[in-house]
Amino acid sequence: MSLDDATQKPHKRLAALLAGDLDEVNALIRARMASKHAPRIPEVTAHLVEAGGKRLRPLLTLATARMCGYDGPYHVYLAATVEFIHTATLLHDDVVDESKKRRGRPTANLLWDNKSSVLVGDYLFARSFQLMTETGNLRVLRILSDAAATIAEGEVLQLTAAQDLSTTEAIYLQVVRGKTAALFSAATEVGGVIAGRPEEEVKALFDYGDALGIAFQIVDDLLDYWGSDATGKNVGDDFRERKLTLPLIKAFASADDEEKAFWKRVIEKGDQRDGDLEHAIALLNKHGALEATRQEALAWAARAKAAMESLPQSELRDLLIDLNDYVVSRVN
Amino acid sequence: MSLDDATQKPHKRLAALLAGDLDEVNALIRARMASKHAPRIPEVTAHLVEAGGKRLRPLLTLATARMCGYDGPYHVYLAATVEFIHTATLLHDDVVDESKKRRGRPTANLLWDNKSSVLVGDYLFARSFQLMTETGNLRVLRILSDAAATIAEGEVLQLTAAQDLSTTEAIYLQVVRGKTAALFSAATEVGGVIAGRPEEEVKALFDYGDALGIAFQIVDDLLDYWGSDATGKNVGDDFRERKLTLPLIKAFASADDEEKAFWKRVIEKGDQRDGDLEHAIALLNKHGALEATRQEALAWAARAKAAMESLPQSELRDLLIDLNDYVVSRVN
Repeated sequence: MSLDDATQKPHKRLAALLAGDLDEVNALIRARMASKHAPRIPEVTAHLVEAGGKRLRPLLTLATARMCGYDGPYHVYLAATVEFIHTATLLHDDVVDESKKRRGRPTANLLWDNKSSVLVGDYLFARSFQLMTETGNLRVLRILSDAAATIAEGEVLQLTAAQDLSTTEAIYLQVVRGKTAALFSAATEVGGVIAGRPEEEVKALFDYGDALGIAFQIVDDLLDYWGSDATGKNVGDDFRERKLTLPLIKAFASADDEEKAFWKRVIEKGDQRDGDLEHAIALLNKHGALEATRQEALAWAARAKAAMESLPQSELRDLLIDLNDYVVSRVN
Repeated sequence: MSLDDATQKPHKRLAALLAGDLDEVNALIRARMASKHAPRIPEVTAHLVEAGGKRLRPLLTLATARMCGYDGPYHVYLAATVEFIHTATLLHDDVVDESKKRRGRPTANLLWDNKSSVLVGDYLFARSFQLMTETGNLRVLRILSDAAATIAEGEVLQLTAAQDLSTTEAIYLQVVRGKTAALFSAATEVGGVIAGRPEEEVKALFDYGDALGIAFQIVDDLLDYWGSDATGKNVGDDFRERKLTLPLIKAFASADDEEKAFWKRVIEKGDQRDGDLEHAIALLNKHGALEATRQEALAWAARAKAAMESLPQSELRDLLIDLNDYVVSRVN
């Protein structure tokens, strides 16, 4: 590997190392997003799928299957399955959140309409189940249909927890497992399952994906209050959308009466004025909520690393460890 | 069977004959619509599932499995699967159509919100895939995931064909297969597959469900212009929603220039005035479009009947033939 390669971000090095597999995944995605009868489907799907997402989830499946020595055809099917579930979820999320931008482009619900996003999302869900069925492996079917249920459950939970200051850290963790970690852990677990690895290795792959996903989401939620232009995050989005993320949950738990009244006004009532975001960030700092959140992200990343380090050393394993380090490097 | 039973509607007689199985299906539906973490899910689902739908699709699966001599546990799983797919579709349909009423009650999107309907629908889709995976039968997984894709594709096609007067009868048939027949035919086909019947019997069960579903939907679309209080249909709904259903497609194909201008104004432009519905119905009658549509419904029903009659005689088989007769009796 050249010096250039070594200094690239880990997901780019993974993509380079797995370029052949990834090409097959992309070809399969293009083939299966087609529709004989409804051209609207590939239009909407291509808008999102070809907007330059990082293909992080399919890369997790390809990398874990390959590091486990798998040399059959089905890791490509499973990687495409995982990307279709992810894409379907994004289409529905953007309807639910009334989002206007995704991956730097206008959302499908804005360019077409909510109806198209709902129905094309349903089509991609169905396509993902067709793809996973083609593997003929009942255990991966169980893992991925369980993940789909956990994702939807987490989204409903997030919806009902929004603007609710009584949201606990346990509920937050459940939401995070649903919105992010469930698909990460399914993506890594099926890599081991399809390769026929022993239970303790499959468990370690699950634990890696689960902890990586949780660390990933906590970092994302932290950067929403702590970000800068360099991190590419738009500071204050969660605050404006009145989402109960970990920093806010921690700060509210330590709040005095005056602070509680502030949080009720801006989050529960949604009455937000000039300077409120700055005051909110000051309160998060005053109670050490940002630092405590950062420590939790680091703790989950350490768990992911430990799980992966329990597996036999290989170039792909080390790249997956680097990927985990990279996820938390934004807050390190 | 008493005289009372014999005069009941066929789906009620089916439900009575399969009462034990149907109780198990309902118990399974209640168990699986639960959510450990998100109480919103069973609330929304129960609102729809317990509103007194006819359970027509699960009855098709139970009846076909039993008439094929099946005595294992999985017809109950497949019947619940089919009902979950149907319920998820209804939740998303009501969002797409901005419906306010379903089964005589306010829709979930009205009582809660579109977000809940989208996400709870996703949850039920995922639950349906978990249920079908539990059968361990890869062929039923293929049939049902194919059906889910056909359903979503048909819905997208219907969306893009709405208000489009160039919609052909072939496109209409594809929409009908998606919105109705795909789940009917999957429901009857899996009954034969799970019972391990020979290919020609499975094919006949598929053909019955496919033709029954098409006849069912054509009758429904016909009654939208031809109904009365007795049929329980609200005449003119499709006209007001500018849907291209078979009567309208046939009338437009025979329209002269003045009539074409009328259809363009009311359907393409949506400029509808007092008396337009009456004028539309007069045009449908003038060109024999209602009678021609009725003949198509009867032809599909005859195909369904022939397919079912090719199978060995039994009480359940005869009830399924009666059910088919009943579907078209509303326009006979």
